[in-house]
Amino acid sequence: MNKVEHIGIAVNSIEQAQTIYQKLLNTNVYMTEEVASEHVLTAFLQTGPNKIELLQATDPDSPIAKFIAKKGEGIHHIAFLVTDIIAEMERLKNEGFILLNDTPKRGADNKLVCFVHPKGTNGVLVELCQEVG
Amino acid sequence: MNKVEHIGIAVNSIEQAQTIYQKLLNTNVYMTEEVASEHVLTAFLQTGPNKIELLQATDPDSPIAKFIAKKGEGIHHIAFLVTDIIAEMERLKNEGFILLNDTPKRGADNKLVCFVHPKGTNGVLVELCQEVG
Repeated sequence: MNKVEHIGIAVNSIEQAQTIYQKLLNTNVYMTEEVASEHVLTAFLQTGPNKIELLQATDPDSPIAKFIAKKGEGIHHIAFLVTDIIAEMERLKNEGFILLNDTPKRGADNKLVCFVHPKGTNGVLVELCQEVG
Repeated sequence: MNKVEHIGIAVNSIEQAQTIYQKLLNTNVYMTEEVASEHVLTAFLQTGPNKIELLQATDPDSPIAKFIAKKGEGIHHIAFLVTDIIAEMERLKNEGFILLNDTPKRGADNKLVCFVHPKGTNGVLVELCQEVG
């Protein structure tokens, strides 16, 4: 793992949260993107080498809608940057972690991503992400 | 805010979580520390410019014990590194954020820290931290 690439935060309204996080981090959202496969709208803010990803559900079946219904708004996942996602998935599988997808899938921000089941990581939803070359 | 300094994760057993996170991040815990004022044991792992802080309560009055009782194990807070914590606290207060302490207090890892109320940050407990010179 190279660094914390981003932290995903589940919010009810990306418009409201964007105002808050722009003030908090003293910087502007530099990108918004809809990830249709995940049923989410995203907005990204940069803080040094790391990003904050605000996530709003686009329909009630979105994992973000379900997360908020269960736990309320808050931190949804930590994404770690990796150089070789296939190798890292293999390594984690061999260490006993449960991967939520068998092959990398396309995520926001031009990334290949894979999620690790929070049951094996003390309740933390972990994402691996690799820049698409 | 200069970067994500660390992400705090509330766990039942630091010994168990340490084993997991050493495998996940493929690196060893480089420091453990008890923070008596917060009633916690901490263990730190490094991933590039960022850290993961595992937090175990040392008694039932610990904020970590209360967090786990309510929400279960999981991500507890995001800490952002700042250069001048007093100036940053002042800036955030003026922006309408609610600070949980009026003056910086001593945290783990040789830091001055201040927490921001999660009610004003979409459910996210935010910590500001500054290196003690």
